[in-house]
Amino acid sequence: MAILSPLATEVFIPVAAVIGIVFAVVQWVLVSRVKLSPTAAAASGGGKNGYGDYLIEEEEGLNDHNVVVKCAEIQNAVSEGATSFLFTEYQYVGIFMSIFAVVIFLFLGSVEGFSTKSQPCTYSKDKYCKPALFTALFSTVSFLLGAITSLVSGFLGMKIATYANARTTLEARKGVGKAFITAFRSGAVMGFLLASSGLVVLYITINVFKLYYGDDWEGLFESITGYGLGGSSMALFGRVGGGIYTKAADVGADLVGKVERNIPEDDPRNPAVIADNVGDNVGDIAGMGSDLFGSYAESSCAALVVASISSFGIDHDFTGMCYPLLVSSVGIIVCLITTLFATDFFEVKAVKEIEPALKKQLIISTALMTVGIAVISWLALPAKFTIYNFGTQKDVSNWGLFFCVAIGLWAGLIIGFVTEYYTSNAYSPVQDVADSCRTGAATNVIFGLALGYKSVIIPIFAIAVSIYVSFSIAAMYGIAVAALGMLSTIATGLAIDAYGPISDNAGGIAEMAGMSHRIRERTDALDAAGNTTAAIGKGFAIGSAALVSLALFGAFVSRAGVTVVDVLSPKVFIGLIVGAMLPYWFSAMTMKSVGSAALKMVEEVRTQFNTIPGLMEGTAKPDYATCVKISTDASIKEMIPPGALVMLTPLIVGTLFGVETLSGVLAGALVSGVQIAISASNTGGAWDNAKKYIEAGASEHARTLGPKGSDCHKAAVIGDTIGDPLKDTSGPSLNILIKLMAVESLVFAPFFATQGGILFKYL
Amino acid sequence: MAILSPLATEVFIPVAAVIGIVFAVVQWVLVSRVKLSPTAAAASGGGKNGYGDYLIEEEEGLNDHNVVVKCAEIQNAVSEGATSFLFTEYQYVGIFMSIFAVVIFLFLGSVEGFSTKSQPCTYSKDKYCKPALFTALFSTVSFLLGAITSLVSGFLGMKIATYANARTTLEARKGVGKAFITAFRSGAVMGFLLASSGLVVLYITINVFKLYYGDDWEGLFESITGYGLGGSSMALFGRVGGGIYTKAADVGADLVGKVERNIPEDDPRNPAVIADNVGDNVGDIAGMGSDLFGSYAESSCAALVVASISSFGIDHDFTGMCYPLLVSSVGIIVCLITTLFATDFFEVKAVKEIEPALKKQLIISTALMTVGIAVISWLALPAKFTIYNFGTQKDVSNWGLFFCVAIGLWAGLIIGFVTEYYTSNAYSPVQDVADSCRTGAATNVIFGLALGYKSVIIPIFAIAVSIYVSFSIAAMYGIAVAALGMLSTIATGLAIDAYGPISDNAGGIAEMAGMSHRIRERTDALDAAGNTTAAIGKGFAIGSAALVSLALFGAFVSRAGVTVVDVLSPKVFIGLIVGAMLPYWFSAMTMKSVGSAALKMVEEVRTQFNTIPGLMEGTAKPDYATCVKISTDASIKEMIPPGALVMLTPLIVGTLFGVETLSGVLAGALVSGVQIAISASNTGGAWDNAKKYIEAGASEHARTLGPKGSDCHKAAVIGDTIGDPLKDTSGPSLNILIKLMAVESLVFAPFFATQGGILFKYL
Repeated sequence: MAILSPLATEVFIPVAAVIGIVFAVVQWVLVSRVKLSPTAAAASGGGKNGYGDYLIEEEEGLNDHNVVVKCAEIQNAVSEGATSFLFTEYQYVGIFMSIFAVVIFLFLGSVEGFSTKSQPCTYSKDKYCKPALFTALFSTVSFLLGAITSLVSGFLGMKIATYANARTTLEARKGVGKAFITAFRSGAVMGFLLASSGLVVLYITINVFKLYYGDDWEGLFESITGYGLGGSSMALFGRVGGGIYTKAADVGADLVGKVERNIPEDDPRNPAVIADNVGDNVGDIAGMGSDLFGSYAESSCAALVVASISSFGIDHDFTGMCYPLLVSSVGIIVCLITTLFATDFFEVKAVKEIEPALKKQLIISTALMTVGIAVISWLALPAKFTIYNFGTQKDVSNWGLFFCVAIGLWAGLIIGFVTEYYTSNAYSPVQDVADSCRTGAATNVIFGLALGYKSVIIPIFAIAVSIYVSFSIAAMYGIAVAALGMLSTIATGLAIDAYGPISDNAGGIAEMAGMSHRIRERTDALDAAGNTTAAIGKGFAIGSAALVSLALFGAFVSRAGVTVVDVLSPKVFIGLIVGAMLPYWFSAMTMKSVGSAALKMVEEVRTQFNTIPGLMEGTAKPDYATCVKISTDASIKEMIPPGALVMLTPLIVGTLFGVETLSGVLAGALVSGVQIAISASNTGGAWDNAKKYIEAGASEHARTLGPKGSDCHKAAVIGDTIGDPLKDTSGPSLNILIKLMAVESLVFAPFFATQGGILFKYL
Repeated sequence: MAILSPLATEVFIPVAAVIGIVFAVVQWVLVSRVKLSPTAAAASGGGKNGYGDYLIEEEEGLNDHNVVVKCAEIQNAVSEGATSFLFTEYQYVGIFMSIFAVVIFLFLGSVEGFSTKSQPCTYSKDKYCKPALFTALFSTVSFLLGAITSLVSGFLGMKIATYANARTTLEARKGVGKAFITAFRSGAVMGFLLASSGLVVLYITINVFKLYYGDDWEGLFESITGYGLGGSSMALFGRVGGGIYTKAADVGADLVGKVERNIPEDDPRNPAVIADNVGDNVGDIAGMGSDLFGSYAESSCAALVVASISSFGIDHDFTGMCYPLLVSSVGIIVCLITTLFATDFFEVKAVKEIEPALKKQLIISTALMTVGIAVISWLALPAKFTIYNFGTQKDVSNWGLFFCVAIGLWAGLIIGFVTEYYTSNAYSPVQDVADSCRTGAATNVIFGLALGYKSVIIPIFAIAVSIYVSFSIAAMYGIAVAALGMLSTIATGLAIDAYGPISDNAGGIAEMAGMSHRIRERTDALDAAGNTTAAIGKGFAIGSAALVSLALFGAFVSRAGVTVVDVLSPKVFIGLIVGAMLPYWFSAMTMKSVGSAALKMVEEVRTQFNTIPGLMEGTAKPDYATCVKISTDASIKEMIPPGALVMLTPLIVGTLFGVETLSGVLAGALVSGVQIAISASNTGGAWDNAKKYIEAGASEHARTLGPKGSDCHKAAVIGDTIGDPLKDTSGPSLNILIKLMAVESLVFAPFFATQGGILFKYL
């Protein structure tokens, strides 16, 4: 048995989660010391703002009082817009979730004809397990819990981000280092809050459900998978809705503002500028928060459900069983230490130190986590245990399992660095793309697409090696913990991920508040690093989604009683080819939605420029609210078809064609979706940074392409605009597509196994 | 036994092939009656040209004599450029093929250690089969035969096309109907020549090999698969090399000519214009010819090798065995009748009749072919026979097999019409894309990409249904004959496919010869219809490639002794995900190649415009040869890495990782490659026709977007340029990628099964 006692486990997990939450609160307090009301700022010591530091530079043209008031105003407008959008979105999603909860209950309840009698267990036929009806009920409850936790995560993330944006802008007046710390601390608030609350809710749910299930761990962890489904369903709508919102506004604002009217990005004269800033908060922050929370919930559920049918489950070794949660707990502690390296142990003083500081976060967290995993594997796992897998069994040592987690963790780092190489303008791929702008937008697009395609190669090999090694060591459990390993440093990942849009918005606020160009340059530098880290974050999300989906897929086939998914069977093959098509269908929907919504936005913005006198001169104010409404309406309306496609496909395929075809669909969607997701987000990231490369003009080569407004730059802007829906709408939604279909199949597996495949049965 | 006697079969196949060749020659003679030398034209009756018709309109500004001389000159230049490129290409490919032939011989010969003794047969262990060494030898010979036939097909196609281009231009002076017939007849020459020669060479090879193999049909048809491999290897280099050539020239010419210098397409002042026209002939004609020949050869080989282990093979029923060849023979006769509907039974008189005439070709050939298949299935197949498949056996009726072929045939038609819907500017999808140009190139690109993704849906369902139904009826043999069904009307398919680039070049020649705008308008109308038919042709090629690859895949696993390809096995899954990545890798290479070559071309063209005095004024001649050289050098250099990727992957994976992983790679590449291939070629086709829609200004809506040179039009040109490498280089090469990897695996299956997987064996 494990060294760590069950009691110690029972204590360690919630303690780690609470530490994470406390740490998040502390970071929040530190951020809130930057005062946003001019009187409070004045009260805290005249020219000083927060921390007691004097402003290094005085504002030109505007006095301190006005700047603070203006920033606070803009922040309020953005925060209100985002809140109102999220509430509208949540209403619609709420209706959907309620209906889906009923579907879950009815479908799963029908497995044994709504009988309330105990039934023979699925895996040990000699024992009796809790009736399917109650598992249906508990699955529904955990589904709703997952959805609500995800919703709260997204909402809190948005609140934190809007709270932090203006504060980052104000800190930028004191220097780039101060602004960096504010943005990064705010990201950390979100990261730690999400990681800890996800862990704690899951932990409490398990303990509460256990009161009913007692020794029936199969049923217990089967019902827990609803948590992952809830988290991911919410994430899907969050990502798609938010993604359409933000990119409709962004593309619309850029097309008229930058291309036609030749005014800078985030210029307050642009009517779509508030919608654009709201979009960053609802799409990149709330959407991404829900997404990564979903991945985390799913990988935990996948690991738990696979573990429940291992020797842990059969021996009722609580510590061993909770290994996935323990890994996450250690992750929180490790990330806490890592964060201090960015905020306390070292100080960012110059622009060129930002990107290395963020990269160091990744490396330090990975290195520390490797040690953490080793320790927890030694403490929490028996030296030898057995995993059951599709009818065969596999003996695993604790060091073997450590290796599985570690390979996932390091594969994540490799994917992160490859992503950085292909999307940062410090390296040749993006510079080549920028260079191709010499001959216009067409070559820019051709080179950008080629770059995205090429960037797929190494991540896929990294994923393939992780899969092969972790499967060879510990079958599907190995893959599940490898996914968990990749996500174990989620708090740090989210922190650097959220840092990007916060800096982006800080720049927007600086522009809108009419602050000096030096402030804007600083926030731009923060933002450029943020673009790369956002791409890295997406790389992580996609890589982990691939592993998580495979683990869920393994759990699904296991639960559905499928022992072989044979490509040579036509039932499977048609599933495979149709599954590989789904990401294209989904992308077609989301991209078209962004395109159409952007067209509407463009028309509105053009109309306002043409009909509001004095708008271009800055003497009249644009009508921001109409643009906010266009984005809101479009995203609510347009998120439904792609959402329905993803949510209904497993249900329809499973019910009509059965588990074999569904297995094919899942495998097809997985292997095809990963590629499009990676290439889309890297292509988009590369175009964005190619444009920034030309704008910044930091090298001899970059200066020959620029400046802003040159033909090269215009071509780069076109690429950037095309990349927007690729990198922020369709690309990142695809990893939810593959995860969600897998977890949904897993939840409905008992139904499909007993009632599914009616078309083949009766034909 | 079948109604048709073996003797009748022996007679019918070559007779059908000879009829096809004679028909091609007759068409050639008809085309050649359009005289290209002014003296001959004059001799044939003064103002009359060919046929004895008088010119309906006289040329403005240029007299008849000069026009004919100029056309002949341009044709010579294009023909010489194309011939010289192909010879250079063939030299490099020849070296590669020779090396690969040695590899085939050594690898296959080593299966039984180069023993010259007979060995127990693979499928009937109680019988003795010919030694592997001789099968290696015969495989090598059929590989070379396939490569040479493919090479000759491509070369002849190019010769015919360049012969026809100028003649079509001259006929356009008499009216659009005459020009249509000339272009279409020339396409038919190519179509019939390819279909017939492919059939006849295969037929002769089988009969010659049979002299050695006698009753050992397993060995016989195993060695025949080399023919498919040879055909497709050649096609790969033809498509990739030709594709890079044509698009480097096209993109380069457009970027400077249309965008920067504002001169029309094909303007003789543009230095890249001859290279562009040469490119159309080496890429779209020679490359496509080799490609479809490869598909045809492979589907025949796949069907034959699967049939050889059916009850036909075991009973030595020659007629039943030759069923695939009989279907192709009937196809030639059916296509012959179909062609007459376009050239003799009806006459195209107006522009708006062109597209319907071409579409009618597809419908008529499909309808007639359905009858043809029914007849030949009744005559050539026993009423009941048995197919052996992965250890199980399946009883099939002749009507069942008829249904398999027919479903492939009709699925092809559906794919064709869906492709037309998404790429013709007569329907809303392309019109929407054109409309999105209002807001610039970025929305155009977003809408175009979304259109391509969406266009994948129905074809994939059509393919999935064909696979399911034909597999259910006759296992892998059903899929093989379904592929053959889709390709059975290849002669008509190639005719309308080749018609496109011929018309395109005819337009180019009209422009370069300085003919009046009315002539150019006619050739443009021919060309617009050609764009859609080219997209349809690509749809066919991709759909059939999917079926062919699956059939080859089935034959491969069967030959390699794999009975299950289980996605749940990590060896297979890593193959699947890496296989799904290969089309991205390949596309990245080809697109980057086009981009880089185009950049070089742009620089050269710019330099010439800047340094040759009087070039823009038309008083000085550009240096065409340098541009031809740039395209030639780039395509020869750049075709090697993607070619090597495709050719080496099966060898490396099979040798190092074994047949299971290789099966995964094949399945992954198939399901992922099909999607990218369809979406890439439809996106490109849609952009091209959106641009033409704006240029033609045929509707109220189109006129609000135009005219040429407007901002909308400029945005459309950018889309068109991006689409060039997608639709003519990477997209159509992908179907070769999936077919070629499958056929190569099949040829090397005996080697992989005995010697492969050394990495897993020794680790």
